[in-house]
Amino acid sequence: MQRYFLTDQYEAKSEYEVTGESYHHMVRVIRMSKGDHVYLAFANQITIVAEITAVLTDKVLLKEIEKEHQEKELPVHITIASGYPKGDKLEWIIQKGTELGAHDFIGFPAQSSVVKWDDKKRVKKQQRCEKIAQEAAEQSHRQVTPQVTLLATAQEFYQRLAEYDEIVVAYEEAAKAGEKSQLAKVLSQTVPGAKILAIFGPEGGLTPKEIDLLTAQKGVLCGLGPRILRCETAPLYFLSAVSYQLELQ
Amino acid sequence: MQRYFLTDQYEAKSEYEVTGESYHHMVRVIRMSKGDHVYLAFANQITIVAEITAVLTDKVLLKEIEKEHQEKELPVHITIASGYPKGDKLEWIIQKGTELGAHDFIGFPAQSSVVKWDDKKRVKKQQRCEKIAQEAAEQSHRQVTPQVTLLATAQEFYQRLAEYDEIVVAYEEAAKAGEKSQLAKVLSQTVPGAKILAIFGPEGGLTPKEIDLLTAQKGVLCGLGPRILRCETAPLYFLSAVSYQLELQ
Repeated sequence: MQRYFLTDQYEAKSEYEVTGESYHHMVRVIRMSKGDHVYLAFANQITIVAEITAVLTDKVLLKEIEKEHQEKELPVHITIASGYPKGDKLEWIIQKGTELGAHDFIGFPAQSSVVKWDDKKRVKKQQRCEKIAQEAAEQSHRQVTPQVTLLATAQEFYQRLAEYDEIVVAYEEAAKAGEKSQLAKVLSQTVPGAKILAIFGPEGGLTPKEIDLLTAQKGVLCGLGPRILRCETAPLYFLSAVSYQLELQ
Repeated sequence: MQRYFLTDQYEAKSEYEVTGESYHHMVRVIRMSKGDHVYLAFANQITIVAEITAVLTDKVLLKEIEKEHQEKELPVHITIASGYPKGDKLEWIIQKGTELGAHDFIGFPAQSSVVKWDDKKRVKKQQRCEKIAQEAAEQSHRQVTPQVTLLATAQEFYQRLAEYDEIVVAYEEAAKAGEKSQLAKVLSQTVPGAKILAIFGPEGGLTPKEIDLLTAQKGVLCGLGPRILRCETAPLYFLSAVSYQLELQ
């Protein structure tokens, strides 16, 4: 069943309206009509099953059938922070990371990042990434669309570290050194609603200087198994492990 | 340090030879010379650190410095079986799945598979996939290069099911129905060396008929969390969960 994200908060009403792009998609693209059912996901994370009661020239009217029952969101808020990788890797970290339940994404210029974007390029990239997050959220039946924030400087990123309850740093050298217990330790101690920041380097990895900065701000160095994962694969391992630990065990 | 896969079995020798493509790569591509160190990964899953003692016109001679200590392979043998997906999704299931430790890959025409390949196309696709597995295995420091087998018929696939100790079937409907415990149950009961087949549908998912066939042959239906994962994402979730459960806990 098709899912639409609305910008307004849910409140119990006899009638709901869908306009704009979602209206266009409903009526023109997939040609829905009276009696068809859709999901309406509201900004306050409530999702309802709604039935179309009327299709007008500029809006669709719907009535609530029932609340969506199943909890689709991870019990913790995971922020995936990636040092800018090459090419379109960031796009697909965001697409796959959204499917796997990330709450939001931050990109930042790490010391090993090769790409250099001016503000114009960065804004364009961010819009592209936001669209990808939106589409992936709809496709994977998320109740929230992850935010994407692409930062201009590493400093802006370090200033945000204090906002999080836990900071996990995926560190290749930790994996090489056989570090095996930190991730399970962190995940087994999380409380529902905790804000967890998971930091991943670009192709070249995080530098010793960056590691020092992050560990100085309570960043925990974690290995993600004995195999060396690419910068776009490591966040997916992490999110899968979070889901497995907190949703399936 | 560069890693080369050799087709012969390891045995303790005073001197090892590298010829053919690996010779070309060592000498012509990355221009290694006497005294340089490389990993040599043998067919029997032993990997050594070796030092180049001589570069000849057709081969490189090396001596063993030490065995590679760290175990890079999952303690169980995971076979990822994918109903043929569209486009190049199979290629990247294999690339990422190799990074994440899959032992081998099987592709088969599922009922919902849209792609139809003649033998010529299938063989070409398989060669391409084998190359991708090889490159990913080197890059992620695997000790084994996963095999890739692309089958012509679903029947050939079903005939292989008896070879496995455990069969896990990723079933979207199970996830929708809130199935949460089967995967953890299966993984917590595995014994080292167990052969586990994990089956994933194409874009359209597995059909009820396929599910019946698989469950009739001790396939266990597993949900992979409450979010709907694309056919190329689900195998990565599964492999990450296996690694987290068996390598990090």
